[in-house]
Amino acid sequence: MISFNKKELAALPRLEKINLMNSATGYKSANLIGTKSEKGIANLAIFSSVTHFGSDPAIYGFVLRPTVVPRNTYENIKETGVYTINSVSRKFLIDAHHTSAKYEASISEFEKTAFTELYRQDFYAPFVENTKIQIGMKYIEEIPVKSNNTILILGAVENIYIKKNLVEEDLFINLGKGQIAAINGLDAYAVPKLHTRLPYQRPKVE
Amino acid sequence: MISFNKKELAALPRLEKINLMNSATGYKSANLIGTKSEKGIANLAIFSSVTHFGSDPAIYGFVLRPTVVPRNTYENIKETGVYTINSVSRKFLIDAHHTSAKYEASISEFEKTAFTELYRQDFYAPFVENTKIQIGMKYIEEIPVKSNNTILILGAVENIYIKKNLVEEDLFINLGKGQIAAINGLDAYAVPKLHTRLPYQRPKVE
Repeated sequence: MISFNKKELAALPRLEKINLMNSATGYKSANLIGTKSEKGIANLAIFSSVTHFGSDPAIYGFVLRPTVVPRNTYENIKETGVYTINSVSRKFLIDAHHTSAKYEASISEFEKTAFTELYRQDFYAPFVENTKIQIGMKYIEEIPVKSNNTILILGAVENIYIKKNLVEEDLFINLGKGQIAAINGLDAYAVPKLHTRLPYQRPKVE
Repeated sequence: MISFNKKELAALPRLEKINLMNSATGYKSANLIGTKSEKGIANLAIFSSVTHFGSDPAIYGFVLRPTVVPRNTYENIKETGVYTINSVSRKFLIDAHHTSAKYEASISEFEKTAFTELYRQDFYAPFVENTKIQIGMKYIEEIPVKSNNTILILGAVENIYIKKNLVEEDLFINLGKGQIAAINGLDAYAVPKLHTRLPYQRPKVE
Protein backbone atom coordinates (compact mmCIF):
# COMPACT_ATOMS: atom_id res chain seq x y z
CA MET A 1 0.00 0.00 0.00
CA ILE A 2 0.94 3.62 -0.49
CA SER A 3 0.75 5.63 2.72
CA PHE A 4 0.98 9.22 3.87
CA ASN A 5 1.02 10.60 7.36
CA LYS A 6 -0.28 14.05 8.29
CA LYS A 7 3.08 15.71 7.73
CA GLU A 8 3.61 14.06 4.35
CA LEU A 9 0.10 15.05 3.29
CA ALA A 10 0.73 18.68 4.21
CA ALA A 11 3.92 18.66 2.14
CA LEU A 12 2.28 17.39 -1.08
CA PRO A 13 1.95 19.71 -4.09
CA ARG A 14 -1.50 21.34 -4.11
CA LEU A 15 -3.02 19.42 -7.05
CA GLU A 16 -1.88 16.03 -5.75
CA LYS A 17 -3.22 16.90 -2.31
CA ILE A 18 -6.68 17.84 -3.57
CA ASN A 19 -6.85 14.84 -5.91
CA LEU A 20 -6.00 12.45 -3.10
CA MET A 21 -8.21 14.00 -0.44
CA ASN A 22 -11.18 14.34 -2.79
CA SER A 23 -11.10 10.73 -3.94
CA ALA A 24 -10.20 8.90 -0.71
CA THR A 25 -13.69 8.72 0.79
CA GLY A 26 -15.38 7.13 -2.20
CA TYR A 27 -18.01 8.25 -4.65
CA LYS A 28 -19.81 11.57 -4.26
CA SER A 29 -23.16 12.78 -5.49
CA ALA A 30 -23.30 15.02 -8.57
CA ASN A 31 -25.87 17.78 -8.38
CA LEU A 32 -26.57 21.08 -10.09
CA ILE A 33 -27.65 23.77 -7.66
CA GLY A 34 -29.85 26.42 -9.29
CA THR A 35 -30.34 29.88 -7.81
CA LYS A 36 -31.41 33.36 -8.94
CA SER A 37 -30.29 36.70 -7.55
CA GLU A 38 -32.78 39.35 -6.42
CA LYS A 39 -31.83 41.23 -9.58
CA GLY A 40 -32.92 38.23 -11.65
CA ILE A 41 -29.64 36.69 -12.77
CA ALA A 42 -29.81 32.91 -12.66
CA ASN A 43 -26.86 30.80 -11.54
CA LEU A 44 -26.07 27.12 -11.91
CA ALA A 45 -23.17 25.29 -10.29
CA ILE A 46 -22.17 21.67 -9.84
CA PHE A 47 -21.68 20.39 -6.27
CA SER A 48 -20.37 17.07 -5.00
CA SER A 49 -21.20 17.57 -1.33
CA VAL A 50 -24.98 17.33 -1.11
CA THR A 51 -25.63 15.12 1.92
CA HIS A 52 -28.74 13.62 3.51
CA PHE A 53 -29.37 14.92 7.04
CA GLY A 54 -32.88 13.59 7.56
CA SER A 55 -36.04 12.31 5.91
CA ASP A 56 -38.76 13.57 8.21
CA PRO A 57 -38.56 16.48 7.75
CA ALA A 58 -36.47 16.05 4.61
CA ILE A 59 -33.26 18.01 5.12
CA TYR A 60 -30.17 18.14 2.91
CA GLY A 61 -26.88 19.92 3.44
CA PHE A 62 -24.02 20.98 1.19
CA VAL A 63 -20.61 22.50 1.79
CA LEU A 64 -19.40 25.88 0.56
CA ARG A 65 -15.82 27.05 0.52
CA PRO A 66 -14.71 30.17 2.34
CA THR A 67 -16.49 33.30 1.22
CA VAL A 68 -13.30 35.21 0.59
CA VAL A 69 -14.04 35.07 -3.13
CA PRO A 70 -17.54 35.77 -4.49
CA ARG A 71 -19.80 32.73 -4.37
CA ASN A 72 -22.92 33.39 -6.41
CA THR A 73 -24.73 30.32 -5.12
CA TYR A 74 -24.23 31.43 -1.52
CA GLU A 75 -25.23 35.03 -2.12
CA ASN A 76 -28.34 34.12 -4.07
CA ILE A 77 -29.50 31.68 -1.40
CA LYS A 78 -28.99 34.26 1.33
CA GLU A 79 -30.87 36.89 -0.74
CA THR A 80 -33.83 34.79 -1.78
CA GLY A 81 -34.03 31.86 0.67
CA VAL A 82 -34.53 29.24 -2.06
CA TYR A 83 -32.54 27.02 -4.39
CA THR A 84 -32.96 23.85 -6.41
CA ILE A 85 -30.98 20.58 -6.47
CA ASN A 86 -31.02 18.82 -9.86
CA SER A 87 -29.51 15.50 -10.89
CA VAL A 88 -26.68 15.11 -13.41
CA SER A 89 -26.98 12.38 -15.99
CA ARG A 90 -24.66 10.94 -18.60
CA LYS A 91 -25.92 13.01 -21.49
CA PHE A 92 -25.13 16.32 -19.80
CA LEU A 93 -21.84 15.52 -18.05
CA ILE A 94 -19.71 17.96 -20.01
CA ASP A 95 -22.14 20.83 -19.55
CA ALA A 96 -22.56 20.00 -15.87
CA HIS A 97 -18.79 19.99 -15.35
CA HIS A 98 -18.49 23.30 -17.19
CA THR A 99 -20.61 25.05 -14.55
CA SER A 100 -17.50 24.83 -12.34
CA ALA A 101 -15.84 27.55 -14.45
CA LYS A 102 -15.62 30.84 -12.60
CA TYR A 103 -18.01 33.17 -14.41
CA GLU A 104 -18.69 36.66 -13.09
CA ALA A 105 -21.95 37.11 -11.20
CA SER A 106 -23.45 39.03 -14.13
CA ILE A 107 -23.18 35.98 -16.40
CA SER A 108 -25.58 33.05 -16.02
CA GLU A 109 -24.26 29.53 -16.54
CA PHE A 110 -27.61 28.82 -18.23
CA GLU A 111 -26.39 31.07 -21.07
CA LYS A 112 -23.11 29.19 -21.38
CA THR A 113 -24.36 25.60 -21.28
CA ALA A 114 -27.08 23.42 -22.78
CA PHE A 115 -29.19 23.79 -19.62
CA THR A 116 -32.49 25.66 -19.65
CA GLU A 117 -34.18 27.37 -16.71
CA LEU A 118 -37.49 25.87 -15.69
CA TYR A 119 -39.83 27.73 -13.36
CA ARG A 120 -42.52 25.89 -11.49
CA GLN A 121 -45.51 27.67 -9.98
CA ASP A 122 -44.31 30.54 -7.79
CA PHE A 123 -40.95 28.98 -6.81
CA TYR A 124 -38.33 31.72 -7.37
CA ALA A 125 -35.27 29.55 -8.02
CA PRO A 126 -34.79 27.89 -11.42
CA PHE A 127 -35.09 24.14 -11.81
CA VAL A 128 -33.09 22.62 -14.65
CA GLU A 129 -35.16 21.47 -17.62
CA ASN A 130 -34.67 17.86 -18.72
CA THR A 131 -32.97 16.71 -15.52
CA LYS A 132 -34.47 13.56 -14.04
CA ILE A 133 -34.63 14.51 -10.38
CA GLN A 134 -35.45 18.09 -9.38
CA ILE A 135 -35.78 19.26 -5.80
CA GLY A 136 -37.04 22.66 -4.65
CA MET A 137 -35.23 23.68 -1.43
CA LYS A 138 -35.91 26.26 1.24
CA TYR A 139 -32.88 27.56 3.12
CA ILE A 140 -32.89 26.74 6.84
CA GLU A 141 -29.55 27.77 8.29
CA GLU A 142 -25.84 28.09 7.64
CA ILE A 143 -23.41 26.44 10.00
CA PRO A 144 -19.88 27.86 10.05
CA VAL A 145 -17.20 25.18 10.34
CA LYS A 146 -14.46 26.76 12.43
CA SER A 147 -11.82 24.16 11.58
CA ASN A 148 -11.37 25.39 8.02
CA ASN A 149 -13.83 28.26 7.44
CA THR A 150 -16.19 26.29 5.25
CA ILE A 151 -19.94 26.68 5.59
CA LEU A 152 -22.55 23.95 5.78
CA ILE A 153 -25.81 25.10 4.18
CA LEU A 154 -28.90 23.27 5.36
CA GLY A 155 -32.23 23.34 3.58
CA ALA A 156 -35.62 21.64 3.69
CA VAL A 157 -37.30 19.97 0.74
CA GLU A 158 -40.30 22.01 -0.47
CA ASN A 159 -41.16 19.89 -3.49
CA ILE A 160 -39.65 17.15 -5.60
CA TYR A 161 -40.10 16.00 -9.21
CA ILE A 162 -38.78 12.67 -10.47
CA LYS A 163 -38.93 11.05 -13.89
CA LYS A 164 -41.51 8.31 -13.57
CA ASN A 165 -39.49 5.35 -14.84
CA LEU A 166 -36.83 5.79 -12.13
CA VAL A 167 -39.27 5.40 -9.25
CA GLU A 168 -39.97 1.91 -7.94
CA GLU A 169 -43.03 0.76 -6.03
CA ASP A 170 -41.57 1.52 -2.59
CA LEU A 171 -40.42 4.99 -3.80
CA PHE A 172 -36.79 3.88 -4.10
CA ILE A 173 -35.30 5.92 -6.95
CA ASN A 174 -33.24 3.64 -9.18
CA LEU A 175 -30.44 6.02 -10.16
CA GLY A 176 -28.99 3.49 -12.60
CA LYS A 177 -32.16 3.63 -14.72
CA GLY A 178 -31.62 7.36 -15.12
CA GLN A 179 -27.91 7.07 -15.97
CA ILE A 180 -27.30 9.40 -13.04
CA ALA A 181 -23.62 10.23 -12.53
CA ALA A 182 -21.41 9.84 -9.48
CA ILE A 183 -18.24 11.87 -8.92
CA ASN A 184 -14.83 10.34 -8.23
CA GLY A 185 -12.49 12.99 -6.87
CA LEU A 186 -12.55 16.44 -8.41
CA ASP A 187 -13.01 15.83 -12.09
CA ALA A 188 -13.93 12.21 -12.80
CA TYR A 189 -17.40 10.83 -13.41
CA ALA A 190 -18.88 7.35 -13.33
CA VAL A 191 -22.34 6.31 -14.52
CA PRO A 192 -23.16 3.34 -12.29
CA LYS A 193 -25.72 0.61 -12.73
CA LEU A 194 -27.52 -0.95 -9.81
CA HIS A 195 -25.60 -3.95 -8.53
CA THR A 196 -27.79 -5.18 -5.68
CA ARG A 197 -30.38 -4.21 -3.10
CA LEU A 198 -29.91 -5.86 0.27
CA PRO A 199 -32.51 -6.53 2.97
CA TYR A 200 -32.79 -4.73 6.30
CA GLN A 201 -30.23 -6.27 8.68
CA ARG A 202 -30.91 -7.72 12.11
CA PRO A 203 -28.31 -9.15 14.52
CA LYS A 204 -27.29 -12.74 13.75
CA VAL A 205 -28.57 -15.23 16.29
CA GLU A 206 -26.15 -18.06 17.06
CA MET B 1 -42.83 13.18 -13.77
CA ILE B 2 -43.97 12.12 -10.33
CA SER B 3 -44.08 14.96 -7.86
CA PHE B 4 -44.60 15.52 -4.15
CA ASN B 5 -44.92 18.75 -2.26
CA LYS B 6 -43.89 19.21 1.36
CA LYS B 7 -47.30 18.21 2.68
CA GLU B 8 -47.50 15.11 0.51
CA LEU B 9 -43.99 14.10 1.57
CA ALA B 10 -44.91 14.41 5.24
CA ALA B 11 -47.94 12.18 4.69
CA LEU B 12 -46.02 9.30 3.06
CA PRO B 13 -45.61 5.98 4.90
CA ARG B 14 -42.28 5.91 6.74
CA LEU B 15 -40.46 3.40 4.50
CA GLU B 16 -41.49 5.15 1.28
CA LYS B 17 -40.44 8.48 2.75
CA ILE B 18 -36.96 7.28 3.72
CA ASN B 19 -36.47 5.45 0.42
CA LEU B 20 -37.37 8.56 -1.57
CA MET B 21 -35.42 11.05 0.51
CA ASN B 22 -32.32 8.87 0.69
CA SER B 23 -32.12 8.29 -3.06
CA ALA B 24 -33.12 11.71 -4.44
CA THR B 25 -29.73 13.42 -4.16
CA GLY B 26 -27.77 10.80 -6.06
CA TYR B 27 -25.04 8.36 -5.15
CA LYS B 28 -23.47 8.34 -1.70
CA SER B 29 -20.12 7.13 -0.48
CA ALA B 30 -19.90 3.75 1.27
CA ASN B 31 -17.52 3.67 4.20
CA LEU B 32 -16.90 1.50 7.23
CA ILE B 33 -16.14 3.53 10.34
CA GLY B 34 -14.00 1.65 12.85
CA THR B 35 -13.79 2.60 16.52
CA LYS B 36 -12.86 1.00 19.85
CA SER B 37 -14.25 1.77 23.28
CA GLU B 38 -12.01 2.62 26.23
CA LYS B 39 -12.85 -0.84 27.55
CA GLY B 40 -11.44 -2.34 24.36
CA ILE B 41 -14.55 -3.41 22.45
CA ALA B 42 -14.16 -2.69 18.74
CA ASN B 43 -17.05 -1.42 16.63
CA LEU B 44 -17.60 -1.26 12.90
CA ALA B 45 -20.50 0.45 11.13
CA ILE B 46 -21.33 1.40 7.57
CA PHE B 47 -21.98 5.08 6.81
CA SER B 48 -23.17 6.78 3.64
CA SER B 49 -22.63 10.38 4.75
CA VAL B 50 -18.85 10.85 4.80
CA THR B 51 -18.28 14.22 3.12
CA HIS B 52 -15.21 16.19 2.09
CA PHE B 53 -14.89 19.50 3.95
CA GLY B 54 -11.37 20.43 2.93
CA SER B 55 -8.03 19.15 1.64
CA ASP B 56 -5.53 21.40 3.43
CA PRO B 57 -5.88 20.48 6.21
CA ALA B 58 -7.73 17.34 5.17
CA ILE B 59 -11.08 17.34 6.96
CA TYR B 60 -14.01 14.97 6.55
CA GLY B 61 -17.43 15.03 8.17
CA PHE B 62 -20.18 12.50 8.69
CA VAL B 63 -23.70 12.65 10.06
CA LEU B 64 -25.02 10.85 13.12
CA ARG B 65 -28.64 10.40 14.03
CA PRO B 66 -30.06 11.66 17.29
CA THR B 67 -28.40 10.16 20.33
CA VAL B 68 -31.65 9.05 21.90
CA VAL B 69 -30.65 5.45 21.23
CA PRO B 70 -27.12 4.20 21.97
CA ARG B 71 -24.68 4.93 19.14
CA ASN B 72 -21.48 2.99 19.70
CA THR B 73 -19.59 4.85 17.00
CA TYR B 74 -20.38 8.20 18.59
CA GLU B 75 -19.56 7.10 22.13
CA ASN B 76 -16.27 5.49 21.14
CA ILE B 77 -15.16 8.58 19.21
CA LYS B 78 -16.01 10.83 22.14
CA GLU B 79 -14.15 8.51 24.54
CA THR B 80 -11.00 7.97 22.52
CA GLY B 81 -10.79 10.84 20.00
CA VAL B 82 -9.96 8.61 17.04
CA TYR B 83 -11.67 6.53 14.36
CA THR B 84 -10.94 5.05 10.95
CA ILE B 85 -12.70 5.39 7.59
CA ASN B 86 -12.34 2.33 5.35
CA SER B 87 -13.59 1.74 1.80
CA VAL B 88 -16.23 -0.83 0.85
CA SER B 89 -15.59 -2.95 -2.22
CA ARG B 90 -17.66 -5.44 -4.16
CA LYS B 91 -16.33 -8.56 -2.49
CA PHE B 92 -17.40 -7.43 0.99
CA LEU B 93 -20.76 -5.77 0.24
CA ILE B 94 -22.89 -8.20 2.20
CA ASP B 95 -20.66 -8.05 5.27
CA ALA B 96 -20.43 -4.27 5.04
CA HIS B 97 -24.22 -3.97 4.85
CA HIS B 98 -24.59 -6.31 7.81
CA THR B 99 -22.75 -3.85 10.07
CA SER B 100 -25.98 -1.82 9.98
CA ALA B 101 -27.64 -4.43 12.22
CA LYS B 102 -28.16 -3.13 15.75
CA TYR B 103 -25.82 -5.15 17.94
CA GLU B 104 -25.41 -4.37 21.62
CA ALA B 105 -22.32 -2.36 22.57
CA SER B 106 -20.75 -5.47 24.13
CA ILE B 107 -20.69 -7.24 20.76
CA SER B 108 -18.16 -6.28 18.09
CA GLU B 109 -19.23 -6.32 14.44
CA PHE B 110 -15.76 -7.68 13.70
CA GLU B 111 -16.90 -10.90 15.41
CA LYS B 112 -20.05 -11.09 13.31
CA THR B 113 -18.62 -10.38 9.85
CA ALA B 114 -15.67 -11.35 7.67
CA PHE B 115 -13.80 -8.18 8.63
CA THR B 116 -10.62 -8.32 10.70
CA GLU B 117 -9.23 -5.60 12.96
CA LEU B 118 -5.93 -4.15 11.84
CA TYR B 119 -3.85 -2.01 14.20
CA ARG B 120 -1.19 0.27 12.83
CA GLN B 121 1.59 1.65 15.03
CA ASP B 122 0.08 3.29 18.10
CA PHE B 123 -3.25 4.30 16.51
CA TYR B 124 -5.97 3.19 18.94
CA ALA B 125 -8.86 2.71 16.49
CA PRO B 126 -9.01 -0.42 14.31
CA PHE B 127 -8.47 -0.19 10.57
CA VAL B 128 -10.17 -2.86 8.50
CA GLU B 129 -7.85 -5.49 7.06
CA ASN B 130 -8.06 -6.07 3.30
CA THR B 131 -9.90 -2.83 2.53
CA LYS B 132 -8.33 -0.81 -0.25
CA ILE B 133 -8.48 2.68 1.26
CA GLN B 134 -7.92 3.15 5.00
CA ILE B 135 -7.90 6.53 6.72
CA GLY B 136 -6.94 7.22 10.32
CA MET B 137 -8.99 10.11 11.68
CA LYS B 138 -8.65 12.40 14.69
CA TYR B 139 -11.87 13.86 16.05
CA ILE B 140 -12.06 17.67 15.81
CA GLU B 141 -15.54 18.75 16.83
CA GLU B 142 -19.21 17.83 16.79
CA ILE B 143 -21.70 20.28 15.38
CA PRO B 144 -25.30 19.91 16.54
CA VAL B 145 -27.83 20.48 13.76
CA LYS B 146 -30.78 22.14 15.45
CA SER B 147 -33.20 21.54 12.59
CA ASN B 148 -33.49 17.80 13.24
CA ASN B 149 -31.17 16.94 16.15
CA THR B 150 -28.56 15.22 14.01
CA ILE B 151 -24.86 15.71 14.71
CA LEU B 152 -22.12 16.47 12.21
CA ILE B 153 -18.84 14.90 13.32
CA LEU B 154 -15.72 16.53 11.89
CA GLY B 155 -12.30 14.93 11.91
CA ALA B 156 -8.83 15.50 10.49
CA VAL B 157 -6.86 12.95 8.51
CA GLU B 158 -3.92 11.60 10.53
CA ASN B 159 -2.73 9.02 8.05
CA ILE B 160 -3.94 7.26 4.92
CA TYR B 161 -3.18 3.90 3.27
CA ILE B 162 -4.23 3.10 -0.29
CA LYS B 163 -3.76 -0.01 -2.40
CA LYS B 164 -1.06 0.88 -4.87
CA ASN B 165 -2.81 -0.03 -8.13
CA LEU B 166 -5.66 2.43 -7.45
CA VAL B 167 -3.42 5.48 -7.25
CA GLU B 168 -2.60 7.35 -10.45
CA GLU B 169 0.39 9.58 -11.09
CA ASP B 170 -1.33 12.77 -9.91
CA LEU B 171 -2.61 10.98 -6.75
CA PHE B 172 -6.12 10.65 -8.14
CA ILE B 173 -7.54 7.44 -6.66
CA ASN B 174 -9.32 5.47 -9.38
CA LEU B 175 -12.18 3.98 -7.37
CA GLY B 176 -13.32 1.89 -10.33
CA LYS B 177 -10.04 -0.04 -10.31
CA GLY B 178 -10.75 -1.05 -6.72
CA GLN B 179 -14.37 -2.06 -7.37
CA ILE B 180 -15.29 0.44 -4.67
CA ALA B 181 -19.04 0.59 -4.03
CA ALA B 182 -21.43 3.55 -4.10
CA ILE B 183 -24.73 3.60 -2.22
CA ASN B 184 -28.09 4.34 -3.85
CA GLY B 185 -30.67 5.13 -1.18
CA LEU B 186 -30.70 3.07 1.99
CA ASP B 187 -29.98 -0.44 0.86
CA ALA B 188 -28.80 -0.52 -2.75
CA TYR B 189 -25.22 -0.72 -3.96
CA ALA B 190 -23.54 -0.01 -7.29
CA VAL B 191 -19.96 -0.83 -8.27
CA PRO B 192 -19.13 1.88 -10.81
CA LYS B 193 -16.39 2.01 -13.40
CA LEU B 194 -14.71 5.25 -14.39
CA HIS B 195 -16.55 6.87 -17.26
CA THR B 196 -14.48 10.00 -17.89
CA ARG B 197 -12.12 12.54 -16.36
CA LEU B 198 -12.72 16.09 -17.52
CA PRO B 199 -10.27 19.01 -17.61
CA TYR B 200 -10.32 22.04 -15.30
CA GLN B 201 -12.93 24.47 -16.64
CA ARG B 202 -12.38 28.13 -17.49
CA PRO B 203 -15.06 30.56 -18.70
CA LYS B 204 -15.81 30.30 -22.43
CA VAL B 205 -14.57 33.28 -24.40
CA GLU B 206 -16.88 34.35 -27.23
